[in-house]
Amino acid sequence: MKLEPVDPNYERRVRESFARQAFMGFIGAELTDVAPGRCTIEVSHRVDLTQQHGFFHAGVVGSIADSAGGYAAYTLMPAESSVLSVEYKLNLLKPADGDRLVATAEVVRSGQTLTICAARMSVRKGNESKLCATALMTMMAMHGHADRSTEPT
Amino acid sequence: MKLEPVDPNYERRVRESFARQAFMGFIGAELTDVAPGRCTIEVSHRVDLTQQHGFFHAGVVGSIADSAGGYAAYTLMPAESSVLSVEYKLNLLKPADGDRLVATAEVVRSGQTLTICAARMSVRKGNESKLCATALMTMMAMHGHADRSTEPT
Amino acid sequence: MKLEPVDPNYERRVRESFARQAFMGFIGAELTDVAPGRCTIEVSHRVDLTQQHGFFHAGVVGSIADSAGGYAAYTLMPAESSVLSVEYKLNLLKPADGDRLVATAEVVRSGQTLTICAARMSVRKGNESKLCATALMTMMAMHGHADRSTEPT
Amino acid sequence: MKLEPVDPNYERRVRESFARQAFMGFIGAELTDVAPGRCTIEVSHRVDLTQQHGFFHAGVVGSIADSAGGYAAYTLMPAESSVLSVEYKLNLLKPADGDRLVATAEVVRSGQTLTICAARMSVRKGNESKLCATALMTMMAMHGHADRSTEPT
Repeated sequence: MKLEPVDPNYERRVRESFARQAFMGFIGAELTDVAPGRCTIEVSHRVDLTQQHGFFHAGVVGSIADSAGGYAAYTLMPAESSVLSVEYKLNLLKPADGDRLVATAEVVRSGQTLTICAARMSVRKGNESKLCATALMTMMAMHGHADRSTEPT
Repeated sequence: MKLEPVDPNYERRVRESFARQAFMGFIGAELTDVAPGRCTIEVSHRVDLTQQHGFFHAGVVGSIADSAGGYAAYTLMPAESSVLSVEYKLNLLKPADGDRLVATAEVVRSGQTLTICAARMSVRKGNESKLCATALMTMMAMHGHADRSTEPT
Repeated sequence: MKLEPVDPNYERRVRESFARQAFMGFIGAELTDVAPGRCTIEVSHRVDLTQQHGFFHAGVVGSIADSAGGYAAYTLMPAESSVLSVEYKLNLLKPADGDRLVATAEVVRSGQTLTICAARMSVRKGNESKLCATALMTMMAMHGHADRSTEPT
Repeated sequence: MKLEPVDPNYERRVRESFARQAFMGFIGAELTDVAPGRCTIEVSHRVDLTQQHGFFHAGVVGSIADSAGGYAAYTLMPAESSVLSVEYKLNLLKPADGDRLVATAEVVRSGQTLTICAARMSVRKGNESKLCATALMTMMAMHGHADRSTEPT
């Protein structure tokens, strides 16, 4: 695990990219923590985000897991790069029944091209927080394609 | 693959459950096909659903894949049951760059408790359609808990 | 995470089942640790277990990961049960280049039917140990089918 | 899916690499089919390969799935390259109860660096063949490292 970011401006780069992910704004997700090799994204409960039993939809759990993993990986990538999700696998451990859903992803292995992250998703209800999902994901650096670029990678 | 539904009203049951998934309505997803062991969900492009390059966010791809898999499985489950996602794994093959995203899931193995589904996601741009993601997922039947129940399972 | 085993003889039950897995003996795997919700399996390098570059084959990594996950789950299952692998996902982080491969699995969530485990695989070379793979897996309890039974489940 | 191999000698290259995978020989696996973007590996039942109920061990299923996926991908890679498994996910659909286990992998998406494959594993018992597992996997090309090289990649 290489936790020394090569780009000292990694946090700004991550926050700006997150702000460009319209879908994160649409679901009300917030980037609450960014550190080298780590990222936390949270979202509050609202009816719009639920499945048929009123809990957070598994797709919402997967969405913030994926973005948290991508940005955890992206903290360690160079300035002139962008990040792509190659794949992710999500285990839903319990119904995501609560007021706030929190995804924290950490880099497990950072390579030149591929970065592997693990994420844990918890749901808070009142004062209680319980683990509701866990994920393992593979991210890819696109070197020479700055994320802010208007050209699609 | 057991393609004979035990509940002749499977389609109505699936469509009613889908209608209760507020998140599917929120992202504008439509259930366009339901058949024994198969389900298709589609969503049209809009800025709200995009990642930083303007393509469908991987979370949207995963969300409709998960719902399509859940409902493909649910077609084969008995009337007095509900369906839970145990886990899913998604490979993103290409950027989901297009006007319409289509997820088709099919049951690979239907068991008493667990149902395994595979899904293929395509993105249409003008007259062209290309495969952009593939998923493998595990669904679980909760017997004796009808989906329409107000009690959470 | 329910770490209280319901069967006080869990260790003996696990060790006897492991001893019946002929494949584990064939590759020279050893069960080196069993605790409630945890299991470690190790195997020493030999040419028979290698891929084309002389490292442990990914299949060997997956094999001991799967058995370690199954037995971590099985420690928490009742006496009259057996354990089945539902699925596993393995990320290979580095070539498994070393003298000894060690898989440690831990239960992340223990349910009535399904148990989710995470596993970490390390490879030792001289005095050094490095993480070479990580896995996420789903195990299922078959209640009423004792593992020692001669009838296949 | 790019099915035109860039190296006309892909079959020889794959067969030679397979022959160098000592573990495949150790378990008695045979490479029975190689075509552009496709590979089949088979293994016959013997007690050495079993789990506690006498069926093929999930690790054997995963091992031939992984090698079949790696070689399906490798058929489309250039001569001066080698192939690495990045990750794989395996769903075990039924106990692998039979005389012969057959893994067929096909390339779903072939990229410059990454290749995604899907594999289906069947088990034959007498005249019957049944699907017992399915996998989704990511392979990586190491360009400029010929597989036959004695230097580990």
